[in-house]
Amino acid sequence: MIPPRVLFCGDLVWAHEEAKQLLHGLAEVVRMDSLDRADFFANLKPGGKYERIVAIYRANESAEHVGIFDRALIDALPPTVRWIAHNGAGYDPIDVKACKEKGIIVSNTPIAVDDATATTALYLMISAFRHFSKGERSLRTARWKSDVSSSLTHDLTGKTLAILGLGGIGFRLAELARAFPMRIIYHSRKEVLGAPDWCEYFGQERLGEFLGLADVLSVHVPLRPDTEGLVSEEMIRKLKRGAILVNTARGKIIDEAALIKALEDGHLGAVGLDVYPDEPAVNPRLLDFPNATLLPHMGTETCDTQRKMEVRALTNIRDYLVKGKGNDVVPELKDLCAKL
Amino acid sequence: MIPPRVLFCGDLVWAHEEAKQLLHGLAEVVRMDSLDRADFFANLKPGGKYERIVAIYRANESAEHVGIFDRALIDALPPTVRWIAHNGAGYDPIDVKACKEKGIIVSNTPIAVDDATATTALYLMISAFRHFSKGERSLRTARWKSDVSSSLTHDLTGKTLAILGLGGIGFRLAELARAFPMRIIYHSRKEVLGAPDWCEYFGQERLGEFLGLADVLSVHVPLRPDTEGLVSEEMIRKLKRGAILVNTARGKIIDEAALIKALEDGHLGAVGLDVYPDEPAVNPRLLDFPNATLLPHMGTETCDTQRKMEVRALTNIRDYLVKGKGNDVVPELKDLCAKL
Repeated sequence: MIPPRVLFCGDLVWAHEEAKQLLHGLAEVVRMDSLDRADFFANLKPGGKYERIVAIYRANESAEHVGIFDRALIDALPPTVRWIAHNGAGYDPIDVKACKEKGIIVSNTPIAVDDATATTALYLMISAFRHFSKGERSLRTARWKSDVSSSLTHDLTGKTLAILGLGGIGFRLAELARAFPMRIIYHSRKEVLGAPDWCEYFGQERLGEFLGLADVLSVHVPLRPDTEGLVSEEMIRKLKRGAILVNTARGKIIDEAALIKALEDGHLGAVGLDVYPDEPAVNPRLLDFPNATLLPHMGTETCDTQRKMEVRALTNIRDYLVKGKGNDVVPELKDLCAKL
Repeated sequence: MIPPRVLFCGDLVWAHEEAKQLLHGLAEVVRMDSLDRADFFANLKPGGKYERIVAIYRANESAEHVGIFDRALIDALPPTVRWIAHNGAGYDPIDVKACKEKGIIVSNTPIAVDDATATTALYLMISAFRHFSKGERSLRTARWKSDVSSSLTHDLTGKTLAILGLGGIGFRLAELARAFPMRIIYHSRKEVLGAPDWCEYFGQERLGEFLGLADVLSVHVPLRPDTEGLVSEEMIRKLKRGAILVNTARGKIIDEAALIKALEDGHLGAVGLDVYPDEPAVNPRLLDFPNATLLPHMGTETCDTQRKMEVRALTNIRDYLVKGKGNDVVPELKDLCAKL
């Protein structure tokens, strides 16, 4: 029997050994080596080197050569493709609606990213409360701590952390912040079943109250058409004067112009950002604010977590090959997957 | 009756209202306004404006004008002085031996500093594991994340945190790191009574084993003659290659030349420092290491903690005035105080 063909769009970095074990005897691995989109599309056609692939392992690095998995790319995939295993929690670079129309299931790598991303949010939160990033810049420009004032800095203990979206990352941050302790409140479309009592839920009708209580608002919702610009000017203005905003999700979830305006007029006391609307471009205006801590999208950047993510994506492919479906189907495609 | 005179060496910043309440009707507060040491010494003499003082509130800022409380200064104090209430956990700017000889008790402000200082250590530890400070510098010099590599960065979860000195700050850091969880081990002269089981003690005979287990060593001992240079070349070399060193205690506790050598040859994977041997001077060599996170001694720099520290120091003065002794007597003087 000819083994099914699996296309690797993006190379593994850490999990080479695990890949051998997970896919051993199950698949022929084809490496995507197209240097541009045209070559990629041409080779997806019958007779091309990517023909008859049934599943795709996708890493974000592949976008450098062939672009994101938008409708045009999904439409160009051979009809044999049934599964795309994305390496990442955020799957906004994949047009899931186009996938649904073609009957392709998309999986991501939840859980694997929770620890590293929540740690990043914790770091940004500490830096924002304490003005540590500003302090280090002061030291490094030979001004010791002359640029920082303790009158503007605060302890985290006893403050209120407002979590927007209590998924795996949001809950993991809640656990870490609980150690201080901080008061933990959250808002999401629905109350999270099984969330502990100390995570206080605020529904849509109490969103204003939720924002008014926050000493820090940390964003943990995925980017979807309905979450783009979710953290709007109106939402930011409902925060207390001097509140902190942290974002480790996606840049486009926050209205960046509203954020910058609120830093300019002091409504926001500090921000901690790991993500930006047009990465890798960063709005140069952000660099001017002393009370901004700015990381270059490092939320999952550890070798421990990168390995976990690769293994998780590969496990979804293995499960698809062996059982017909993987575990980590994205919410929009769960219905479709249930019918398989 | 003439109320006893209390000298404020350094102004209060936050606790003016609390000071009024705590010292109401108990003392005449005299403000130290000497601009140099000679004027200070002259006015400590009979007939001078600081004569007949019985207690001193001391803040570190006073050193700018009159210097530290070394033997010369202690010897110049009028014989009426019985208590020095230092605002700070580290009391190395006070010659406690000279105080003991004159029968002067010294108190500091433990507990008040624990939360803020341990949070600083947590921040430095995250930054060192994740290369976040390097990442921010990369972004701010328009190189996005080209200067960082996930191959050198790690999650904290599951790693071993070795705490040198399990006092209030060390234990508070243990609680915060336990949330990940990290494995918590500690070394101190004696096992800490009442420490929980999950804080594993390593005595002097197991110091080598302790250092060999550490993914990160965090320093939390006071600076005393016997702790100066405690973290020696020998100690650093017993850490694993790639281990992290964090210091929020005092710069002189670490042999800085040995630390720099270990960064140069890669034995230390990263360092997070809030303190330096010759503050506010920082060895310029440190600025060259991309994997160094360097704060300008901000361990207790929050308005919440500064207020707590001022109140704690004032409470020691009040207790001395009312009860003859305050709570927070430094260890070297506990015997002397017990005889009062």
